[in-house]
Amino acid sequence: MSTTVIILAAGKGTRMRSQLPKVLQPLAGQPLLGHVVETAKQLKARRIITIFGHGGAHVQNAFKEENIEWVEQKEQLGTGHAVQMTLPVLPTDGFSLILYGDVPLVSSETLNKLLEASQKTGIGMITLNVDEPTGYGRIVRSHGQIQAIVEHKDASEEQRQITEINTGIYCVENSKLHEWLPQLSNENAQGEYYLTDIVAMAVQDGLEIASIQPKLAYEVEGVNDRIQLANLERAFQRQQAIHLMREGVAFADPERFDLRGTLTTGQDVYIDINVIIEGHCEIGSNVEIGAGTILKDAKIASNTKIQPYTIIDNAVVGEKVIIGPFARLRPGTQLDNDVHIGNFVEVKNSHLEKGVKANHFTYLGDAEVGTESNIGAGTITCNYDGVNKHKTKIGSSAFIGSNSSLVAPISIGKGATVGAGSVITRDVPENTLAFERSQQIEKANYQRPQKTK
Amino acid sequence: MSTTVIILAAGKGTRMRSQLPKVLQPLAGQPLLGHVVETAKQLKARRIITIFGHGGAHVQNAFKEENIEWVEQKEQLGTGHAVQMTLPVLPTDGFSLILYGDVPLVSSETLNKLLEASQKTGIGMITLNVDEPTGYGRIVRSHGQIQAIVEHKDASEEQRQITEINTGIYCVENSKLHEWLPQLSNENAQGEYYLTDIVAMAVQDGLEIASIQPKLAYEVEGVNDRIQLANLERAFQRQQAIHLMREGVAFADPERFDLRGTLTTGQDVYIDINVIIEGHCEIGSNVEIGAGTILKDAKIASNTKIQPYTIIDNAVVGEKVIIGPFARLRPGTQLDNDVHIGNFVEVKNSHLEKGVKANHFTYLGDAEVGTESNIGAGTITCNYDGVNKHKTKIGSSAFIGSNSSLVAPISIGKGATVGAGSVITRDVPENTLAFERSQQIEKANYQRPQKTK
Amino acid sequence: MSTTVIILAAGKGTRMRSQLPKVLQPLAGQPLLGHVVETAKQLKARRIITIFGHGGAHVQNAFKEENIEWVEQKEQLGTGHAVQMTLPVLPTDGFSLILYGDVPLVSSETLNKLLEASQKTGIGMITLNVDEPTGYGRIVRSHGQIQAIVEHKDASEEQRQITEINTGIYCVENSKLHEWLPQLSNENAQGEYYLTDIVAMAVQDGLEIASIQPKLAYEVEGVNDRIQLANLERAFQRQQAIHLMREGVAFADPERFDLRGTLTTGQDVYIDINVIIEGHCEIGSNVEIGAGTILKDAKIASNTKIQPYTIIDNAVVGEKVIIGPFARLRPGTQLDNDVHIGNFVEVKNSHLEKGVKANHFTYLGDAEVGTESNIGAGTITCNYDGVNKHKTKIGSSAFIGSNSSLVAPISIGKGATVGAGSVITRDVPENTLAFERSQQIEKANYQRPQKTK
Repeated sequence: MSTTVIILAAGKGTRMRSQLPKVLQPLAGQPLLGHVVETAKQLKARRIITIFGHGGAHVQNAFKEENIEWVEQKEQLGTGHAVQMTLPVLPTDGFSLILYGDVPLVSSETLNKLLEASQKTGIGMITLNVDEPTGYGRIVRSHGQIQAIVEHKDASEEQRQITEINTGIYCVENSKLHEWLPQLSNENAQGEYYLTDIVAMAVQDGLEIASIQPKLAYEVEGVNDRIQLANLERAFQRQQAIHLMREGVAFADPERFDLRGTLTTGQDVYIDINVIIEGHCEIGSNVEIGAGTILKDAKIASNTKIQPYTIIDNAVVGEKVIIGPFARLRPGTQLDNDVHIGNFVEVKNSHLEKGVKANHFTYLGDAEVGTESNIGAGTITCNYDGVNKHKTKIGSSAFIGSNSSLVAPISIGKGATVGAGSVITRDVPENTLAFERSQQIEKANYQRPQKTK
Repeated sequence: MSTTVIILAAGKGTRMRSQLPKVLQPLAGQPLLGHVVETAKQLKARRIITIFGHGGAHVQNAFKEENIEWVEQKEQLGTGHAVQMTLPVLPTDGFSLILYGDVPLVSSETLNKLLEASQKTGIGMITLNVDEPTGYGRIVRSHGQIQAIVEHKDASEEQRQITEINTGIYCVENSKLHEWLPQLSNENAQGEYYLTDIVAMAVQDGLEIASIQPKLAYEVEGVNDRIQLANLERAFQRQQAIHLMREGVAFADPERFDLRGTLTTGQDVYIDINVIIEGHCEIGSNVEIGAGTILKDAKIASNTKIQPYTIIDNAVVGEKVIIGPFARLRPGTQLDNDVHIGNFVEVKNSHLEKGVKANHFTYLGDAEVGTESNIGAGTITCNYDGVNKHKTKIGSSAFIGSNSSLVAPISIGKGATVGAGSVITRDVPENTLAFERSQQIEKANYQRPQKTK
Repeated sequence: MSTTVIILAAGKGTRMRSQLPKVLQPLAGQPLLGHVVETAKQLKARRIITIFGHGGAHVQNAFKEENIEWVEQKEQLGTGHAVQMTLPVLPTDGFSLILYGDVPLVSSETLNKLLEASQKTGIGMITLNVDEPTGYGRIVRSHGQIQAIVEHKDASEEQRQITEINTGIYCVENSKLHEWLPQLSNENAQGEYYLTDIVAMAVQDGLEIASIQPKLAYEVEGVNDRIQLANLERAFQRQQAIHLMREGVAFADPERFDLRGTLTTGQDVYIDINVIIEGHCEIGSNVEIGAGTILKDAKIASNTKIQPYTIIDNAVVGEKVIIGPFARLRPGTQLDNDVHIGNFVEVKNSHLEKGVKANHFTYLGDAEVGTESNIGAGTITCNYDGVNKHKTKIGSSAFIGSNSSLVAPISIGKGATVGAGSVITRDVPENTLAFERSQQIEKANYQRPQKTK
C-alpha cells in the first residue's frame, strides 16, 4: 500500500513560552517533529507532507536534510483547515496517515496496525481508553461501531462517562480526503474547520470506522506546555530503559538514565546512576559506565571501565581501557586497547596507542602517543601558539616526566625520557633523556614574607 | 486589617534525632521557621510573635536580623499553653494568625483567604480533606457549620469516617484570644492545654467558624521526623519545578532539580538533570545549564552555556560565555561576554574581560585579565605567598603559555607573550615576549631506572 | 533450635541475558546470593547448604571465604528435586529454612518469626497478600488453616480471587524433609519435582502449616530479569534510606541515594543528592556529604565537610576537614584534622598531618606532609620513575610554591620553602628556601606566529 504521511506542525505553542516553534522543542535530544518524521521514515511513507505555520522558516530549516513536502497554513483555522492545505499536492490514490508534530511518540508498530485496519474500511483512527477522560472528545459507539466523536463540552452526562477518547490520529483513503475535506464547515462556536468532522461524513457514507489502540498510552500524548513535555520525556526515558533492560543492560537506577539518541550494547553492560547518552553510542560487552558519565557519539569496546564523571564526545575507545574519574575525551580522540586515562585528564584529537597511560592532570591535544608510553602528571601538549594548532608525536615506550610542557610541533622518540618540569621545544631522539632545568639553589634560614596589615 | 502572626516554635523535635532545634532544620536551604517568617512578611503582618522553648538561644540567633518578638514557653504544656504565653504582648485589636514553625509551607495566598474568611466571623481555620484521616482530629459539622474538633482517639466509629481534618492553623480576633485563652483547661488525659478548645468556646459563644482549604495539601503538613522532612522537601521541589515550567523553563527531569533559594529566569532556559540552585540566582534567556551544575548566588546573562559539572558561587557571568565542564567559579568572579572557561579551571576573585579564554587546568585567583587574552593550559597565578594574597594583572590580547606560573603581584602588559613553562616574577611590558627557561639538554642512550625488588 | 539453611542457587537466569550466573548478579553492591548467605549468618545457622548448578564454579568461587556446603543439582528438574539433592548431607534433627539465591532480601527478623512459628507445627511457610495475585500459587485455607497451594493455572475462578500467595519459602523439620522429599513425584505437565508438594503431604499427615507474612513485601520478591532486579534495587535503596533517616540522617532526596554496603553515622549527618556509599563507611557527627560524592570504605570523622563531586576510596579523614569539590582521595590516604583539600586534587597513599592545605590542582602520591604545610596549586609529587614508586616527605610548616615538581625520593625540611615552578631533585633542609629557576628573559616587540593557511 502506498502511504502518505501528513504532519500538522503549524501550531504556535504559546503555552511553551518559548521563542522556538513548538515542534522544534527537543524531546530526548530530538525536536518533537523529528520523532514524527523518523517514524514516517520507518513506515517507508511514499511522501511526507508537513503543514507549517508559525516559525515556518525555522522549522523547514531544521529539517532541510529530510525529504519533506512543505505546505503552508497561513491562518490557523483549525485542524481540518490545516489538512485542506495539502489537497493540491495530496495523491488521489493510497492512504494518508494524519499525524501531529506535537504528538511525537506514536510508534510505527501502532501506525502499521492502524494502516492495516483502515485498509479494510477506508478510514481508521487511534482511540485510547483513559481513566480520566474529562476534556477529551469521546468515542460514541453503537453495537461496537463508532458512531460519532462528541467533544467534551457538547457531551451529555451519559456520554461523559465514556472513557474511550479521540486521539486525533487518522488513517484515511486519499480519495476520501479529496471528497470530504472540501465539505468541512466552520459553522461552529469557534469558527474553525475540524478534521474530526470527517468521522461524521464517513458514518453518513455508511463506512465503518476502524479503530485501534496504541500499545503505550504516551504514544498519543500531545505536548502543549513544559510540564507535558517533561512528563513525556520521562515516560519515554523510562520506556527506553525498560527496552535496554530487556536486552540485558543492567541499570543501577533506570529512573536516573537519559538516552538522547541511540545506543547499541553488548552483553553485561552496567550503567550506574545519572548517565546521559547522546547521539549514537556503541558499547561493547562487560563495560561499566560510572555514575554521572556523559557519552556522546562514543564507541566503547568490550571490557572497558568508564569511571564516574567522565565526559566523552566523539571518541573511539578500545578494549580493557580504564578512564576517569573526572576525565574528558573530546572529539577526535582514539584510545587503543589497555589505555589508562586518569583523573583530571583531557584528551582532544589524539591517538593513544595500546597501553598508554596518562593518569593525572594531563592535556593531550593533537597528539599521537605510541604504545606503552607513560605520560606523567601535569604534562601539557602546548598545541596552540595563539593562532595555529600543532602536532605532538610521542613514540612508543616513552616516559614523559611530570609537569612537562611539550611545545608542538614536536616529536619525542621511541623510548625517550623527558625529565620532570621540562619545557621541550626541540625534537627528542629515540632512547634519549631530555630535560630542561636549572640548578637547584638553596638559601638557608630563609625569612618568609610577613603578614601585611 | 491589622494582622499579628503567632508562630509556635518551642517544640524539641526529638524524633529528628538532631542537636539542632527542629524549627532550624533546613528545607530547601532555609530553616523551617524561616519559611514561616517569610510568609508572615509577605502578609505584611504588623507583628510576628514567636514562641520559643528548646534551643531558644540558637533559634533567636538564627533570626536576629528579623523583626520578631520572642516569647518563651518554659514548660511544654500544650499548644494552648504556648499561645497563652503571648497574651502579655498580644494586641487587643485586629486578628492573629496562629502558625507553626514546623509547618513551613503554608502560603500567603491561603492565609490571606483565611484572614478574609475569618473577618466575617471572628474565627476561622484551615481544614483539609484527606484520603487517610487516621490519627488526625476530625472536623464535625452540622448543616455545614463546624460544631467541634474531635481527636481521633475520642472519635466515634461514625466520626472516624470523616475525612476533613484539623490542621491546627487558626485565625482569631485578638479580643477573643484574650477572652478564651485564659479559660483553657488542662483537665484531660495528657494534662495539656489544647488550643483546639477555643473552637468549642467559639461554638458555645454562637460564633460561626469560618474554614478554608489550602490550595496544595503540603501547605499544612508538619515535620516531625527526617522522613516527613524529606517528603516535604520533595513535594516542595516538585512544586517549584512546576512553577518554573509554567514560566517557560525547560527541565530534562523536574524530579531531579533542587532550588534552595530563589531563581529568576529569562526565556528558553534549559536545565539538565541534577542541577542545584542555591541562594539567589538570575539566569538570562537562551541559557543552558548542564547536568550536575551547582549555582549559588550567581548571575548568568543570556546566550551563555554552562557545561556539565560546573560549580559557580557568587559570580557574575556575561553573555555568550561558555563554562565547563568541570569548572569552578568562586566568589568575586566576573566573566564578561564571550569568555571561555574550560575543563578543570578555577577562577576566584577575578575579572576576565570580553573574549578571554582559559580552556584547561588553570587557576586564576585575584586576577584581572584584559580582553581577548588567552591563558594557556596549566597556568597558575601564584597569588598567595603563604601569608598575603597578591594581584595579577594581565593586559588585553596577552598570550600566556602553558604551565606558566605568574608570581603575584605581577603585571603582564597588553599584547605580551609568556613562553610555556615560565615562572614570571617580574612585570612584562606590552608586546614583549617573556620567558624563563634553561637550555634543553639531551643524553643519548639513557638507561632508565631498574625495577627494585 | 539448630537451624540449617538450604539455598537454591542452581538456576541459569536466562532472562537476565548475562554471562554471569543469576545468583551472582549484584544488588546494592553484593551478589544476590550474598544477601541470602549474610542473612543465614545473622540467623546463626548451624549449616548453610547451597544447591548450585549453572555456572557452579563461578558461584562457588565467589563465596569461597564462606562456610558453605555445596551440593550440585546436575539437571534442573524442579525445586523439589533441588532440595532432594541435599538429603545426603541434611541433618536428621532440627529445622531447615528453604531459601532462594534469587530472593535476596528476606530478612532475618522475618525468618526468625517463621522459625518460631514452625517449631510448634513442624512446618511453616511465608505467604504474602498482594493486590494482583495473577500468576502466583494461591494459599487455599479452610477455617483459617492452610489446606493447599494451588498454582494459578490450576486454580478455579473462585480460587483466583484469593490474594494470599505462596512465596516458596518454607521452614520444615529435617526429619520431615527426609520423609517427604523422596516421595515427590514428577507426574505433572512440566515433568518436574515441585517442593510445593510437601505442603499437601503435611496436610495429609494432619499437620498444621504455620504461616507468617514478611514485614516488607520486597523480602519475598524474586529476580528473574533486569527489570525486576532494578525494581528490587530501588525498593531496597529506599528502605535503606528510610532506615538511615530514622536514625537521624538528613537526606536532600532519599530517592537519589545508593548504599552498596554498610554505613554507620553519627548525629546530624547531611547527605546531598546522588551520593553513593560503597563497602563499609563510617561517618561522624555534623558531617556534610556534598552532591554527587562517592565514598568507598571511607572513614570520615566529625565536623568534616565533603564538597560536591568528591571521590574517596579507602581513606581515613579527620575532623574539621574540608574536601572538594572535584577532589579524589585514593587508597591509603590519611587526612588528619583541619586538612583542606581543594578542587582538582588527587591524594594517594599519603598522610597529611593536621592543618595541611592543598587547595588546587595537586597530586600527592606516596607522600607524608607535616602539620600546617601549604602545598601550592599545581604541585606534583613525581613518585614514579617508570618502574618504581618513591616517597616524598615534607616537614611541618613547609610552603611548596605553585607548579612545583618534587622528584621522589625526596625530603623537604620543616619550615622549608620551595619557589614556584621548581623541579626539586635534592633534599631541602629545614627553614631553607629552595628553587630551580632561570633568569627571566624578555624580548620586546615580539612578533607572534602568524596564521598559516
